[in-house]
Amino acid sequence: MAEKITPRDRDYNQWYQDVVRAAKLAETSPVRGSMVLPPNGYELWENMQRGLDGMFKATGHRNAYFPLFIPKSFLAREAAHVEGFAKECAVVTHYRLKEQDGDLIVDPEAELEEPLIVRPTSETIIWDTYARWIQSWRDLPLKLNQWANVVRWEMRTRLFLRTAEFLWQEGHTAHATEAEAVEETTTMLDVYARFAEEWMAMPVIKGVKTASERFPGAVDTYCIEALMQDGKALQAGTSHFLGQNFAKAFECTFQNQDNEQEYVWATSWGVSTRLIGALIMTHGDDQGVILPPKLAPIQVAIVPITRTNDDNEAVLDAAEEMRDSLTRAGYRVVLDDRDQYRPGWKFAQYEVEGVPVRLAVGPRDVKNGTAEMARRDTGEKKSVSAREIVPAIREALHDIQKALYDRAYAFRRDHTQVADSYDAFKAQVEEGGFVLMHWDGTAETEAKVKDETKATIRCVPFPGQFPGIDTAAAGTDPVSGQPSEQLVVYARAY
Amino acid sequence: MAEKITPRDRDYNQWYQDVVRAAKLAETSPVRGSMVLPPNGYELWENMQRGLDGMFKATGHRNAYFPLFIPKSFLAREAAHVEGFAKECAVVTHYRLKEQDGDLIVDPEAELEEPLIVRPTSETIIWDTYARWIQSWRDLPLKLNQWANVVRWEMRTRLFLRTAEFLWQEGHTAHATEAEAVEETTTMLDVYARFAEEWMAMPVIKGVKTASERFPGAVDTYCIEALMQDGKALQAGTSHFLGQNFAKAFECTFQNQDNEQEYVWATSWGVSTRLIGALIMTHGDDQGVILPPKLAPIQVAIVPITRTNDDNEAVLDAAEEMRDSLTRAGYRVVLDDRDQYRPGWKFAQYEVEGVPVRLAVGPRDVKNGTAEMARRDTGEKKSVSAREIVPAIREALHDIQKALYDRAYAFRRDHTQVADSYDAFKAQVEEGGFVLMHWDGTAETEAKVKDETKATIRCVPFPGQFPGIDTAAAGTDPVSGQPSEQLVVYARAY
Ligand SMILES: [Zn+2]
Ligand SMILES: [Zn+2]
Repeated sequence: MAEKITPRDRDYNQWYQDVVRAAKLAETSPVRGSMVLPPNGYELWENMQRGLDGMFKATGHRNAYFPLFIPKSFLAREAAHVEGFAKECAVVTHYRLKEQDGDLIVDPEAELEEPLIVRPTSETIIWDTYARWIQSWRDLPLKLNQWANVVRWEMRTRLFLRTAEFLWQEGHTAHATEAEAVEETTTMLDVYARFAEEWMAMPVIKGVKTASERFPGAVDTYCIEALMQDGKALQAGTSHFLGQNFAKAFECTFQNQDNEQEYVWATSWGVSTRLIGALIMTHGDDQGVILPPKLAPIQVAIVPITRTNDDNEAVLDAAEEMRDSLTRAGYRVVLDDRDQYRPGWKFAQYEVEGVPVRLAVGPRDVKNGTAEMARRDTGEKKSVSAREIVPAIREALHDIQKALYDRAYAFRRDHTQVADSYDAFKAQVEEGGFVLMHWDGTAETEAKVKDETKATIRCVPFPGQFPGIDTAAAGTDPVSGQPSEQLVVYARAY
Repeated sequence: MAEKITPRDRDYNQWYQDVVRAAKLAETSPVRGSMVLPPNGYELWENMQRGLDGMFKATGHRNAYFPLFIPKSFLAREAAHVEGFAKECAVVTHYRLKEQDGDLIVDPEAELEEPLIVRPTSETIIWDTYARWIQSWRDLPLKLNQWANVVRWEMRTRLFLRTAEFLWQEGHTAHATEAEAVEETTTMLDVYARFAEEWMAMPVIKGVKTASERFPGAVDTYCIEALMQDGKALQAGTSHFLGQNFAKAFECTFQNQDNEQEYVWATSWGVSTRLIGALIMTHGDDQGVILPPKLAPIQVAIVPITRTNDDNEAVLDAAEEMRDSLTRAGYRVVLDDRDQYRPGWKFAQYEVEGVPVRLAVGPRDVKNGTAEMARRDTGEKKSVSAREIVPAIREALHDIQKALYDRAYAFRRDHTQVADSYDAFKAQVEEGGFVLMHWDGTAETEAKVKDETKATIRCVPFPGQFPGIDTAAAGTDPVSGQPSEQLVVYARAY
């Protein structure tokens, strides 16, 4: 690995770009704003999908698929929705190219009667369909999820965090009552929080967005927010209570048990490949990415210490045996016996790529019946018995998963402050991290703070999100001097 | 289920539409040419994905993801490729909508400098990337697969078989030698054939396409062809040897072990949601779809025979116990205890949806420790012991998988004929099925036959595809009177 990684201290943004490239997680493409996901990046997403998909199914959801294209008129039906998405969408206007004087041009005779929008999100096309599917209370609840690509035209892009095309899942549910829809919204927020904490080893806080940060067309947007190592917040997932807005826009009614027609209640919720960016910025270090064992495409990399002119058979046999035991035990293992790279090069590569555990097996190990085990998160090395390799790996992976979470949790705790005055707040925002402050509930104060400090209200936190801090107590907004119902979470954010 | 299914005899096309709708596998959407896949259809695709993905990984491939949008200039680089796809593609020309006089219009000021094509296939964008990734023989082979949506503008659409947007996988591999690339092409054709036969229970023949049916940009296109119940052929998968065409178009060279620069050799191969159409038309009957057990989202549906005013607890307990045993044993089981539908309605629904086995449990079964097991493929019913439910289901599913294949194989055998004269050929084509006939190898004869009979050459079959018929023996083309190297497979096709 000749690739240099800029230290985080020197330039965090450059560090991020360097590790994404060096770990082969993503790269920019010649298509403006679109990224290529090489196998390392895509397999990480596949593992995230598997984890989330299991949780969606366990909460009673099924997967389905809806069209990529949305007729322009659909987007226009819900006023806030169109306002939010019309300004940054990819528009298909023609269906044919033709040759003209040796050039390939858009055929002016093949213009669509109605332009099509490449889905930025699918509420409109889905609620048009639901209006046909839902007739009676017997058809409810309807709880579907879609794994898909979406496009939101972005001028300033950043791999994983903000790209024109990205991969995501979007859940869309329909309910007979408001209470049931609200419950679904918070259930799915809990699913996201559990996934972030248990799979990604990334602590998050749960709360509700202010009106100005709401999803276009939502009544309420709930979110999980994580804190990155540079002190900036990152919105990691959102769950929206949509009220009857989309049901009204698409005339989706149902006959209730009293034979009356009612509009259906809706939710939608999504997470995206943005989570990979969050993962990198939560755990990575100056040597590269660090992947939590539960998500790592490769959990254990085995590197045989061979020499070009030696007889390496015993070493390779021992390495293969370890690989086979671990694979049988259900772990994702690679035995890297490629001749064209030396062991040191391989060590560096797996370090950059964030493989949680590396095993090295040399001639002396074979003699002793051991292997050298190195933890990616701490760098700690120790000799382990080859016969006990499965329990040793089980324990190491478990410990790493926990240690990553604990470290991230401690970091967030150490970078969360309560502001007593607006001056203190400004200094704290400058330091980075979450800053809790009272808020009078007005968009004016929110905008003023954003304008003056670049900090936004990440959420109005649910009670109990910050151990030791009673966010639910009333107080005074130091910015306006007006009464405040509770502390809210401010931060600069991605 | 009040939904009527037209008998196949009366109108096969209408039968197909009826079963697709009644089994809730797909439906048309308001977006011209795009379909909606409800959970029944999408889950079937997920199971196909799982089966194929395992086979791709076992043959050394990894998954990745490339951009949805392809710059117009990329498409133009490979002459045959652009010729094949430019006439039916969705073109993104703008990136913003705006309001004007209360209308939502495409913002003329937001026109892209270069139009983007929604990928009809990804050779161009992928080879542009490979040119950056591949420098040396050490980087080869590069064997990637992508699961994605693609768009080919179609005027006449048909659910699953021909739609503007469809889901598929596309493999794209890069090799140092021609021989290795050709081997990859046939390896993947074998993977497709095995998937069709072992998972879909659908016999296929393997062969190579004629020049006129080749993938645009390919040197050779290999295919698997299946025979539908109406006697029409269906191309179920293709694997392309691309030579150095794309490497040359995108300047993708590598340094070989002698330090010389060479162009890289390429393959691509794909199957799509079209396979679902093939599955339906291979196995379905006048009662609905019949799903092969290995792919069925629900393998066993348990229907408790309850009555509104009875005490149903013992029946429900017995049904739950069966569900739990079968789920633990790894089967995909549904216990349908919904109150709002009667058992007879449920029986009909699972029959239409093609669930391979249905179990019914009533009060008498509870007393006897039995359940009534019904096979979807034969309609056969028998009483099975509740204690032996797991082995009984294992055997039934195994038998059904095999019976479906055998039935389809016998059908194909009975509907394959060899034509000795052009007159006999015409009558045989009219009857339907595969018709083997000598071909002189010219595009003229191929076109003449297509013109006069609507039959196309499905493939030049590999040796041994038709037991008892020596397709490899030379002869005379009865259409032109010219010499022929072997029999080829003609049929009318989807
Ligand atoms: Zn710090
Ligand atoms: Zn027949």
